[in-house]
Amino acid sequence: MPKKNAFYAQSGGVTAVINASACGVIETARRHGDKIGKVYAGHNGIIGALREDMIDTSRESDEAIAALRHTPAGAFGSCRYKLKSLEENRAEYERLIQVFKAHNIGYFFYNGGGDSADTCLKVSQLSEKMGYPIQAIHIPKTVDNDLPFTDNCPGFGSVAKYVAISTKEASLDVAAMCESSTKVFILEVMGRHAGWIAAASAMAAEQAGDPPHIILFPEMPFCQEEFIAKVEQTVQQKGYCVIVASEGVQYSDGTMIAGSVTTDAFGHQQLGGLAPTLAAMIKHELGYKYHWAVADYLQRSARHIASATDVEQAYAVGQAAVEYALAGKNSVMVTIERLAGEEYSWRLGEVGLDKVANIEKKMPSDFISRDGFGITQLARTYLAPLIEGEDYPPYLNGVPNYARLAKLPVKKKLNTPFDI
Amino acid sequence: MPKKNAFYAQSGGVTAVINASACGVIETARRHGDKIGKVYAGHNGIIGALREDMIDTSRESDEAIAALRHTPAGAFGSCRYKLKSLEENRAEYERLIQVFKAHNIGYFFYNGGGDSADTCLKVSQLSEKMGYPIQAIHIPKTVDNDLPFTDNCPGFGSVAKYVAISTKEASLDVAAMCESSTKVFILEVMGRHAGWIAAASAMAAEQAGDPPHIILFPEMPFCQEEFIAKVEQTVQQKGYCVIVASEGVQYSDGTMIAGSVTTDAFGHQQLGGLAPTLAAMIKHELGYKYHWAVADYLQRSARHIASATDVEQAYAVGQAAVEYALAGKNSVMVTIERLAGEEYSWRLGEVGLDKVANIEKKMPSDFISRDGFGITQLARTYLAPLIEGEDYPPYLNGVPNYARLAKLPVKKKLNTPFDI
Repeated sequence: MPKKNAFYAQSGGVTAVINASACGVIETARRHGDKIGKVYAGHNGIIGALREDMIDTSRESDEAIAALRHTPAGAFGSCRYKLKSLEENRAEYERLIQVFKAHNIGYFFYNGGGDSADTCLKVSQLSEKMGYPIQAIHIPKTVDNDLPFTDNCPGFGSVAKYVAISTKEASLDVAAMCESSTKVFILEVMGRHAGWIAAASAMAAEQAGDPPHIILFPEMPFCQEEFIAKVEQTVQQKGYCVIVASEGVQYSDGTMIAGSVTTDAFGHQQLGGLAPTLAAMIKHELGYKYHWAVADYLQRSARHIASATDVEQAYAVGQAAVEYALAGKNSVMVTIERLAGEEYSWRLGEVGLDKVANIEKKMPSDFISRDGFGITQLARTYLAPLIEGEDYPPYLNGVPNYARLAKLPVKKKLNTPFDI
Repeated sequence: MPKKNAFYAQSGGVTAVINASACGVIETARRHGDKIGKVYAGHNGIIGALREDMIDTSRESDEAIAALRHTPAGAFGSCRYKLKSLEENRAEYERLIQVFKAHNIGYFFYNGGGDSADTCLKVSQLSEKMGYPIQAIHIPKTVDNDLPFTDNCPGFGSVAKYVAISTKEASLDVAAMCESSTKVFILEVMGRHAGWIAAASAMAAEQAGDPPHIILFPEMPFCQEEFIAKVEQTVQQKGYCVIVASEGVQYSDGTMIAGSVTTDAFGHQQLGGLAPTLAAMIKHELGYKYHWAVADYLQRSARHIASATDVEQAYAVGQAAVEYALAGKNSVMVTIERLAGEEYSWRLGEVGLDKVANIEKKMPSDFISRDGFGITQLARTYLAPLIEGEDYPPYLNGVPNYARLAKLPVKKKLNTPFDI
């Protein structure tokens, strides 16, 4: 039986460690060169497969591939492109199988969040029906930490660490300025529907009463009156108030506090402007001088301060995906399982993709403090190991020396255009 | 002659390394315990002196003082409080001298920017007239890098490094997303009148054509037409466009692009909202999907990725201030002098405060590229050593272990209230 090649693609918003998963996939495949052929990467994610536009990773040096472990964002390009349902656009799935067949691809490694788990499942199902079986393994990735069945998601630990550190540093700044200047600082972080990232800011606090003083979760309906009262009380008691807000905070009727701006290809609303809106609210009601920051892409690309736990797990899920495929597994997502015990330890597991697709794991209610503005000890215990350890990249001329790949294309075999 | 005590205060916006200067002052004073008494720190800057509210640093352990070297923001509290002119409020200056006299303070170390250099000068002048001579030494500090007579300002190198790294990381993110999603990313950075911080983002580029593609300086009048044309051209050529904008960007008639919000105690306008304004402009003219970030306090408090050069220099200017005072100097600012040669080297110098006060050093015109959207090789050569080296803080539980001082008060001797 001739060796099958593998296809690897990155999907959705990138993270500080998704390339560490790519590194795990490619290095592991190279170690099993007797059983697995080349790894072709989708140029700009699944779009690359549809267009037959793939990068031949076998032409990258071992050093370049190793450098992916410390390089943020998606080295092969990612995409926001959700395949429609089989009923709506069967042609897309058939095209994928056609491209995979043309390039002797027998392994499909899809590195993404909930939407890509769904795509991964459909590719697996359809390939069997079309008589060209492909083993589809989903490699979890999302800063939002909202995938089910895995204790945590690669990408989250690093954004969590960044947000905790940034909150701690900015809080020291406000504390130093508050006597005669800024009294309120607002940091807007990512998290459309789940408050995991905002929750991580609480790890900035060493002692009870330390900032952040208020965390706003999408899971908790926003009440302006309670919020303003808490801000005022905090400034009176502490002299200043630090607020960390999830971009998806909304009123009890589901209205976003900051108006939605546009809608992306997955149908997600692109949010923004929450921090200035909250600042204006506070200024109007209480008159305090404020500062606000919006971390946006800075938070999810901050490889310079990635969590060592996160980097290790991101690599491990990539490695496991290849090992699972070689063990004959199909249509599963690699999961991270937390083991019992005082000391944090974990192992890898798996879950069927039919169970995963399109479920969002929100913050459990016992992770949010009674007043709705903080987290519980249970949440702290969960978060603590995920931000543990510093995995610094190498530096050159004062900035991180990130991988620059050659990205040589795989020669096309179909050469038929495909409109997406 | 009884030993005189020293007064140290932090002024204006804090930085990632102003506490390293404090560390330099206190550790050096401790080493000269035979000649210099205690170091009293102003609680919340000069306000602490006016209120006779001082922190006795002699009651902090050596370990706590050493930890200041790796701790961001102002450990003793800073303030935005500009003393009026001698003619307008002589009482304030007299009060300072009175407090200094009551506490046997003979050395005044003021750690700040241009405004505090002015205060430092006046204290020195008036103290002589009032027959209680005080040696006033100004310790430079400002992320804005706009003090004259010094090659660079402590605090700038670290914010420059942070902005260069953040720009590099976010650019990789946009590059990965641009095929099907975000095409334009805007990072708003500090810099009211001088574009030094925005300029530093250019250090993210390894090769010509690398992001950032557009830098907006306060020194260059903003022309919407040219800007939009450059954004469009960049997206067409590169697939995406990364923009770094100084908060103080303005039209040729001096109007700020983002409306000013409030005015601080120094009469500076508090700006904000530039990034979303530019984003809306681009969306309206070109229709591109965008993301924007506002780094705000995150950039100037980011001790986790401070420049090693900056930390070393910040400590050195604090140390020198004490040594200058012991050498009998008065009414000077410590300066950093760049020495000639291929390899970067520097030494400390001094300049009379009468020359420093209220001069802002903007970007020289030969540091800005001809099209006004980038920097020249001359600027790169200037900036390169300032962001060199990583001086990582120690970590505990995944976040930096920053100093927590006891901050015990100096017993009041005057006990007369003073309204500020």
